[in-house]
Amino acid sequence: MALARRLSRLGTETAFAVSAAAAAWGAKGNTIYPFHLGDIDLATPAHITEAMNAAIADGRTGYCPGPGIPQLREAMADDINRLRGTAYTADNVAIQPGGKPVITKFLQAVMDEGDEVLYPNPGFPIYESQIEYLGGVARAYRYLPTERGFAIDLEQVRSLITPRTRAIIYNDLQNPISAESTQEEREAIAQLAQEHDLWVLSDEAYFETRYSGQSHSISSIDGMKDRTVILYTFSKKFAMTGWRLGAGIAPVEVAKVFSTMNTNNESCTTHFVQYAGIAALTGDQQPVADMLDVLRGRRDAACAMINQIPGVDVATPESTFYLFPDVTEAVRRVGATDVDDFATQALHATGVSFCTRNHFGRRQPGEDRDYIRFAYSGIDEHRIREGLGKLKDWIESA
Amino acid sequence: MALARRLSRLGTETAFAVSAAAAAWGAKGNTIYPFHLGDIDLATPAHITEAMNAAIADGRTGYCPGPGIPQLREAMADDINRLRGTAYTADNVAIQPGGKPVITKFLQAVMDEGDEVLYPNPGFPIYESQIEYLGGVARAYRYLPTERGFAIDLEQVRSLITPRTRAIIYNDLQNPISAESTQEEREAIAQLAQEHDLWVLSDEAYFETRYSGQSHSISSIDGMKDRTVILYTFSKKFAMTGWRLGAGIAPVEVAKVFSTMNTNNESCTTHFVQYAGIAALTGDQQPVADMLDVLRGRRDAACAMINQIPGVDVATPESTFYLFPDVTEAVRRVGATDVDDFATQALHATGVSFCTRNHFGRRQPGEDRDYIRFAYSGIDEHRIREGLGKLKDWIESA
Ligand SMILES: Cc1ncc(COP(=O)(O)O)c(C=O)c1O
Ligand SMILES: Cc1ncc(COP(=O)(O)O)c(C=O)c1O
Repeated sequence: MALARRLSRLGTETAFAVSAAAAAWGAKGNTIYPFHLGDIDLATPAHITEAMNAAIADGRTGYCPGPGIPQLREAMADDINRLRGTAYTADNVAIQPGGKPVITKFLQAVMDEGDEVLYPNPGFPIYESQIEYLGGVARAYRYLPTERGFAIDLEQVRSLITPRTRAIIYNDLQNPISAESTQEEREAIAQLAQEHDLWVLSDEAYFETRYSGQSHSISSIDGMKDRTVILYTFSKKFAMTGWRLGAGIAPVEVAKVFSTMNTNNESCTTHFVQYAGIAALTGDQQPVADMLDVLRGRRDAACAMINQIPGVDVATPESTFYLFPDVTEAVRRVGATDVDDFATQALHATGVSFCTRNHFGRRQPGEDRDYIRFAYSGIDEHRIREGLGKLKDWIESA
Repeated sequence: MALARRLSRLGTETAFAVSAAAAAWGAKGNTIYPFHLGDIDLATPAHITEAMNAAIADGRTGYCPGPGIPQLREAMADDINRLRGTAYTADNVAIQPGGKPVITKFLQAVMDEGDEVLYPNPGFPIYESQIEYLGGVARAYRYLPTERGFAIDLEQVRSLITPRTRAIIYNDLQNPISAESTQEEREAIAQLAQEHDLWVLSDEAYFETRYSGQSHSISSIDGMKDRTVILYTFSKKFAMTGWRLGAGIAPVEVAKVFSTMNTNNESCTTHFVQYAGIAALTGDQQPVADMLDVLRGRRDAACAMINQIPGVDVATPESTFYLFPDVTEAVRRVGATDVDDFATQALHATGVSFCTRNHFGRRQPGEDRDYIRFAYSGIDEHRIREGLGKLKDWIESA
């Protein structure tokens, strides 16, 4: 039986193949050091689970409104305003089963077939997949290495804009490269959006995953609120990846569209999980601080180790739980044919498992350096040291 | 800022307006008899919640595989096979956040723009909305009243099939009209599908909501398994509407597509809720039998009352929790301008709230009878008698 032609345009996250390779190698009795997971190995704070159970005991097991329960929408608007200096109300909030659904719903709401959308590459792979699946033209923009990490190639962004460009996807505090915009860079993106009348998807999945300083949202820049949709998620901040709770924070007419899409697609987000969300936003924040302490310790351990490895180099990012080291020299040193071969060799030689640049979008013309991504959200400090020590020994002895 | 053109084709469930009208009338101090809800006012069985909490305690709060955890996919395949006589494996199962997501995913997987899809009207409104939203041509087929309820107008179905017809949506045990196919009718649909090489979406949301006899799935008919996708949901059987747990049971290549769509849209269905699903399928079934007893009592009370109302007529269905009485004479008797005016007058005169035929799709040419839908899943027996008693008095005194 024939399937629909549109499926030929549907991409996916190829990083699952890395998990599968690690699992297969582990199943043979090898120790695995999992640096490939964007998931968190810490427990969701107990008061969040308790709030969910109180809601169940209170009978919150039936359908609820498509855009979410009013109390969570209000708590969400308050939280966004407090941390971003914006002025949203509950009407701007459309609760979703995770942050990810905001990507497809944003594109469905603002992009028609043949329209062009700018997106970061390397970047979260679902951007490109959904732009193309929905019949748009995906235009990748790149980052350039700097002393402090990476910066968006603004010249390139500018050069990619055409009359058909409808939107730009902007992931400040970036996965996989953990880049953070200066205020200047953020304003430059905002200005381009206003000049060319673009919608902005501001993916703020890691807004609160930071170890010093303060995050800023492009939506708080003058003139941006009416053209920006914020992707918010409970996943990373509260160690709730498997709960599937997030939201689109959007101009009212877009939030209404999201709500109708919810009614069409999944009816609503799990009812009682939304009460857990209220507890997460309004309850004790100490567990969040504690989690950040743990992650900071892991980051410091990982960066210290990585920079001791010959031919591997990384800046210490202030946010996300990813490191994106340049491994160009190391790839050469171990005699790997390319960065994916390097990853496979590293897994088999040391048990250290990680994604490469190639899991985050098609390589762009002129790219001549090799990068890999270490995620330290799913591995403890002791094993970080042990695993990266083995990686160091392996590369040194090559 | 302009929104995408495709949104002009996005429909919704208009029944929410009925909830809003009832809530507004209730807020003025009036007693409401809620017959408009497709939701259930009974508690989810306790062992299901307990299994969820055990999973959380066991750390199942992280991401899980897109198509669902293997144990639930296996339990689901076993359950489907046991109750339908099929031979599915876990590979045929793609877990979803509810049954509803199967509708859009099915259409995205099998229908291209311009393709035609047959769907029941009156029927679940999301069928038509998603066919048109995704660029297909929605072709409504109707039911004809019989002694025992309603039958699909097979002649009409046959006449609607063209070379562009790709699929038929078939909702045996039907919402809103509670029609159930004879084996003959089911086989006739299966034969048409095979003759014209059509995909079938078999919406089995009410497969286990039945008071006598046994349900049968079109997927168990020879030659149907490879062209049928079953919409399965935990919502109705286990009083889990707000939990958002369901599945598409599909040929392996379609289940794989669903899995990739999950990775793109919502990553996965809430991880620990899937453990609740295993407990629902494999645990104590007494609570399900108890719920059916309660619903049977409500059905009997409602049917007895309804058939005493002058100008209102209904057969007693063996399944679903909906009644679809013919109110043509009653509409005339109270002097209502149409069936929606009848509903508004009834709400204001008696507090009885219900949907009409018009909430379940556009009226078809030649339709000259008026119908309303009573749902008895959200109102207890005592209030069913009280509310329908008031409705009777109101109509009798007109
Ligand atoms: C940049 C980015 N955006 C969005 C998401 C979506 O996360 P979720 O759907 O769990 O909220 C992720 C998850 O890894 C991410 O890294
Ligand atoms: C016929 C039919 N199909 C599908 C559904 C979807 O239910 P859920 O998404 O809760 O599984 C419903 C819910 O009312 C229904 O009546």
